[in-house]
Amino acid sequence: HGPPRPEARHHVAVGADTVHWGYLSRSLPPVLHVAPGAEVMIETLTQHASDDCERMIKGDPGAESVFHWTPDLKKVNRRGAGPLDASIFGRGAGEGFGVHILTGPVHIEGAEPGDVLEVQILDIKPRPSANPDHFGRCFASNASTWWGYQYSDFLDKADRREVVTIFEVEPSGDAARALYSYRWVPQIDPSGIRHDTIDYPGIPVDHSSLVKNLDVMRGIKVPLRPHFGCMSVAPRETGLVDSIPPGNFGGNLDNWRAGKGATLYLPVSVPGALFSVGDGHLAQGDGEIDGTALECSMTGTFRFELHKKGSPTKGFLRGLTGPLLETPDEFVLHGFSYPDYLRDLGRDAQAEVYQRSSLNRALRSAFRLTRRFLMDARGLDEDEATTLMSIAVDFGVTQVADGNWGVHATIPKALFR
Amino acid sequence: HGPPRPEARHHVAVGADTVHWGYLSRSLPPVLHVAPGAEVMIETLTQHASDDCERMIKGDPGAESVFHWTPDLKKVNRRGAGPLDASIFGRGAGEGFGVHILTGPVHIEGAEPGDVLEVQILDIKPRPSANPDHFGRCFASNASTWWGYQYSDFLDKADRREVVTIFEVEPSGDAARALYSYRWVPQIDPSGIRHDTIDYPGIPVDHSSLVKNLDVMRGIKVPLRPHFGCMSVAPRETGLVDSIPPGNFGGNLDNWRAGKGATLYLPVSVPGALFSVGDGHLAQGDGEIDGTALECSMTGTFRFELHKKGSPTKGFLRGLTGPLLETPDEFVLHGFSYPDYLRDLGRDAQAEVYQRSSLNRALRSAFRLTRRFLMDARGLDEDEATTLMSIAVDFGVTQVADGNWGVHATIPKALFR
Repeated sequence: HGPPRPEARHHVAVGADTVHWGYLSRSLPPVLHVAPGAEVMIETLTQHASDDCERMIKGDPGAESVFHWTPDLKKVNRRGAGPLDASIFGRGAGEGFGVHILTGPVHIEGAEPGDVLEVQILDIKPRPSANPDHFGRCFASNASTWWGYQYSDFLDKADRREVVTIFEVEPSGDAARALYSYRWVPQIDPSGIRHDTIDYPGIPVDHSSLVKNLDVMRGIKVPLRPHFGCMSVAPRETGLVDSIPPGNFGGNLDNWRAGKGATLYLPVSVPGALFSVGDGHLAQGDGEIDGTALECSMTGTFRFELHKKGSPTKGFLRGLTGPLLETPDEFVLHGFSYPDYLRDLGRDAQAEVYQRSSLNRALRSAFRLTRRFLMDARGLDEDEATTLMSIAVDFGVTQVADGNWGVHATIPKALFR
Repeated sequence: HGPPRPEARHHVAVGADTVHWGYLSRSLPPVLHVAPGAEVMIETLTQHASDDCERMIKGDPGAESVFHWTPDLKKVNRRGAGPLDASIFGRGAGEGFGVHILTGPVHIEGAEPGDVLEVQILDIKPRPSANPDHFGRCFASNASTWWGYQYSDFLDKADRREVVTIFEVEPSGDAARALYSYRWVPQIDPSGIRHDTIDYPGIPVDHSSLVKNLDVMRGIKVPLRPHFGCMSVAPRETGLVDSIPPGNFGGNLDNWRAGKGATLYLPVSVPGALFSVGDGHLAQGDGEIDGTALECSMTGTFRFELHKKGSPTKGFLRGLTGPLLETPDEFVLHGFSYPDYLRDLGRDAQAEVYQRSSLNRALRSAFRLTRRFLMDARGLDEDEATTLMSIAVDFGVTQVADGNWGVHATIPKALFR
């Protein structure tokens, strides 16, 4: 294909004006309009940058803009899909019903419901610190949180805690090591609200309140798997949608295979598709057991292609109903406890989905999706598809952190060569 | 270490006298006694060889011995842990409560309860056909069965069926292709019992009764992952134990990572450990969705080492309570719905375990095991272990075919370098 035409290259800087925090919506005004074929570099920020403001926010105009929060001014006020007046829990505007800082949306010209948006992930780079004290170094955070799988199952039930660990990327660029950790202690945010747990995103952590453990994970190097946890088109439903549960619109897939060189296909539900991205992860294991990954501000470069309804130029997109990831060697399909939860769980879907998650349901979903893919996209009959699934397709636990638990199916391309 | 001493090499041929079919038991007489350090080549047969007797049994003295079944003589009468008089369902001796042809047991001298048996998998080779018409070629079977995950979920609920597909290994040796398939039709076994479904192992399939589909999986090559589905020490419980549900004694793990170059560690429960092996798989996907893998008679070469209780020479064996697989790059821990199901599910455990399986439970088990491994074997504290699990450990669906459903955790060794 050669290099893209210069006029088709775009750049979206991250800032208070180019992000939406904690929710998706078809009503959001686009930050950019592009034609199919365009290459777009998009900066993103991790919502966990405030775990160590010194290293991950200070001196960075984009991050300082998004995280700006003083008693007088909170630049990005709404964080989450909840009520703006925080009338449910009083946590803050949006109530933290959704946590991810998402850059976008990008409007893709000509995209209509029924089309498929192809998102090629051309590059992913961690965002270096702009603080002169740490200049050029890259940092990340893992938070072992109350919504993690471990939280109900501590060895000592009486000692429930949330733990944040700050990591730095090794000079080699292919691993990270822990710098220090701390237990969460209650924080008073700049608006005066006290947070006994990590119940609202972007709370600036007062490091003078912490006891830091500097002897953490000695000798351990975490291999990197840079990817974006959240890549989404706008859901078809009106209103604001919590950014946490993934679904057929994509969203918070939290699949580490969505790295450089991979391509994500998403069924379009609204005019212009409205693509948003965020939740950068330096690494994650299948399962995302403690509630978060190795969270890191990152910049992605993407190329968008459009497959019009009824005439996909790639046969394997026939019948696509949810997110399909393609890597150089694999197709990866995403099953969920409730693939279309916004429709299927009724009026209270966004609350219900957290109560009803089940790996058993997610596997059933992944099984059916995979059977359908092998039949529609590869022309197998049902018996062939079932047999092939048993002897060559791997089912894994994507995440049990995001309300709508996921099981993915990995189909090797080698089958079809 | 250099090559093993010649006197420490042994060979167990497969035949009616060296197998037990469908069950494990601490009461079985060993077919071989060896000292720790011994290298043993063990032949095994797939219980699915009778799906195509021409290709997988005929002309092979070992297979003909094990599968010999005429109205006058059934050389291996008991198949399964059920009643010998088949008084429950009338399927046949042992009732098919357990299906695997297991070669062994091998008694390891000096092994005692509380020790850990190390099983190094030095080599795995498929067993070539001995029939002159197919001489030297290797065949395998997948059966999409009534106990598979798909059986309750066909696209047309009214068209329930079992489907057998016969495969051949490609000349390259690294892939297999389908030769033909057939729907199961009722078979009358040599004792005169009719089998409407695949409800008893080793039923010789009368190919004149079949409609064969020769146009199956056109263009598809299945990459090989040769491994043994079943590697076990004897459970501590008395009596016969169904070979299907895996547990802390190992058994029917059905993890394809147990291939050449891998090592399996099993906690010893009975004197001599009593190791048995079978259920050869040319390939399997995580999940084993249709009830079986790519089933193939295979010969394995193993080296046994013993780690005495309280003084394991490998630190990562501290606190081992169930099967641990080590590959060149990974440690793999096995969670189950009920890790110690024979004890935990009471008198009817062997029936109950099929009714109660749950991926949610299996993940909980895998989570706890992994936390324990990272703490005991790697010296991490609980918080470090939890964090590491979230950012670097992959949880996958081992199988939903074996009653006691499994979720495994894959821990990269690169973490500790």
